[in-house]
Amino acid sequence: MKKLINDPADVVADALRGMAAAHPELRVDHADRVVYRGDAPVAGKVGLVSGGGSGHEPLHAGFVGPGMLDAACAGEVFTSPVPDQILAATRNVDGGAGVLHIVKNYTGDVLNFEMAAEFAAAEGITVQSVLVNDDVAVQDSTYTAGRRGVGATLLVEKIAGAAADRGQSLDRVAALARRVNAEARSMGMALTSCTVPAVGHPTFELSETEMEVGIGIHGEPGRRRIPVRPAREVAELLVEPILSDRDFTGVVIAFVNGMGGTPLIELYLMYGEVVALLDKAGITVARSLVGSYVTSLDMAGCSVTLLNADDDLIELWDHPVHTPALRKGC
Amino acid sequence: MKKLINDPADVVADALRGMAAAHPELRVDHADRVVYRGDAPVAGKVGLVSGGGSGHEPLHAGFVGPGMLDAACAGEVFTSPVPDQILAATRNVDGGAGVLHIVKNYTGDVLNFEMAAEFAAAEGITVQSVLVNDDVAVQDSTYTAGRRGVGATLLVEKIAGAAADRGQSLDRVAALARRVNAEARSMGMALTSCTVPAVGHPTFELSETEMEVGIGIHGEPGRRRIPVRPAREVAELLVEPILSDRDFTGVVIAFVNGMGGTPLIELYLMYGEVVALLDKAGITVARSLVGSYVTSLDMAGCSVTLLNADDDLIELWDHPVHTPALRKGC
Repeated sequence: MKKLINDPADVVADALRGMAAAHPELRVDHADRVVYRGDAPVAGKVGLVSGGGSGHEPLHAGFVGPGMLDAACAGEVFTSPVPDQILAATRNVDGGAGVLHIVKNYTGDVLNFEMAAEFAAAEGITVQSVLVNDDVAVQDSTYTAGRRGVGATLLVEKIAGAAADRGQSLDRVAALARRVNAEARSMGMALTSCTVPAVGHPTFELSETEMEVGIGIHGEPGRRRIPVRPAREVAELLVEPILSDRDFTGVVIAFVNGMGGTPLIELYLMYGEVVALLDKAGITVARSLVGSYVTSLDMAGCSVTLLNADDDLIELWDHPVHTPALRKGC
Repeated sequence: MKKLINDPADVVADALRGMAAAHPELRVDHADRVVYRGDAPVAGKVGLVSGGGSGHEPLHAGFVGPGMLDAACAGEVFTSPVPDQILAATRNVDGGAGVLHIVKNYTGDVLNFEMAAEFAAAEGITVQSVLVNDDVAVQDSTYTAGRRGVGATLLVEKIAGAAADRGQSLDRVAALARRVNAEARSMGMALTSCTVPAVGHPTFELSETEMEVGIGIHGEPGRRRIPVRPAREVAELLVEPILSDRDFTGVVIAFVNGMGGTPLIELYLMYGEVVALLDKAGITVARSLVGSYVTSLDMAGCSVTLLNADDDLIELWDHPVHTPALRKGC
């Protein structure tokens, strides 16, 4: 295993230390491993809390800031944050308008966020939760009952964050977040495995000529393992299952995401192929995002996420956001 | 070779197509392979042109936009753009205040930018050039006489771009760009080689237990090949040669850059180690940047760049910028 780390047991703590140093506008609670926007809680604003296992950077801490999350809870690599972390985050972002939990559909995350929400409710904090489960690849998986939550998480966090920033109520922000999840679909693939630092060897074996289609962001098995194909065929293998799963007839926000080990030149190339397919299908891309945002450690590969977007969603997508990994608006 | 590409011969054209689709605010000349800000030329503003071989994305096209570059010329992968491309870019960004060429110190880039500058001068366009040569690792290298230009290129483009945006003259913008280069030093390392698409196999061989210290951004040999070490020792191996080469006693802008195949969690971890070393040396980090900005295709590894920064440089660093890869200000 070749990684820029110290002791594998210290990866998350060490990375949070670097993140705190790089982003003085954030506040990092190193004991609880929660990254807060510096001015949390914001009085009168719905607080947005997300989090999950580490190893998906910049998700989630890179999306903390005005216009997006109020706090992100970092678990160990590919391991859910514990209820105490989530409870602390919930308390500290509650500005009196309630708190929304944005939870990717992995069993540990779901259970721990639920438990934290119950504890918070017992303390008098109003909490709602939205479950993100946009991955069309498989039904049930290594850590999931139902579909996995992947790229749409960023879209939910961005759009719900914008609505909260505009002073919308918890009910409305939660309903919007659920709508974004319902209108979004994703599909991913891998050219290589990731390697979890504490494990020290690749999560799965993939030969020099194979790729895995429908991969999960923890290296969970996908749909099938096939010989590596040209980018335009890879794009078809990702876009086709998305379009088969949901009616995408109008205008979309399109997101081509890198898995962590794939360079940007390949992501732009993939985006070109995805847009060509959408054009052919009569789908208009209103907004796009290309980059490594929902990653799987050092895995090489990419995913495609499409979101059916009306003017309201597009306007919220364009709302200013100031986070380490996503910035917009002036 | 496993990459998200079609024909290796089409990588640059295909990626530019994706970039054009993703960034309607830019204008891409696919024949000349030049990426322009959409409103170029900006009347009365010094035009900034950079470019070089592709494979270093987001450098340079990702830095085109208000507050930074007016145009970026994309060569083939790891191959200089030709004089005709650079001449076209120079013509098309000249808003009457002259044009600055920002050139990384690789022999092909230097010759082709020089030739383009001569042609432009013959057409009556005033051109100045700044050579970026911040890499302390080696004197002379595979494609370079003198030192290589690496991470400081981004700092030069950002700060000169801010000065041009504020309406400073070509002489002042050029002098500032040279000053940034003179005050900046970089050092990089690799855990893996990169693979050039048209070649199809790794540029160099590095065993599962080795790293290359002082690597160039095309996989050019560095100082030495040694067993992989913990991140805190890697940070020492990068920071120490920088501090030995130049007096960094005061305030710096610190930049930890990923080589393309290294995930963000490791870059933040490395940044934490770099800051700890700078603290120990009595150096204050005024501003920082952590991410994969000056890459080497799929190479895993990182580089550190430090810039001696006074209040003027920091203010220019903070000046608004709106490019695909770097955004600031509101």
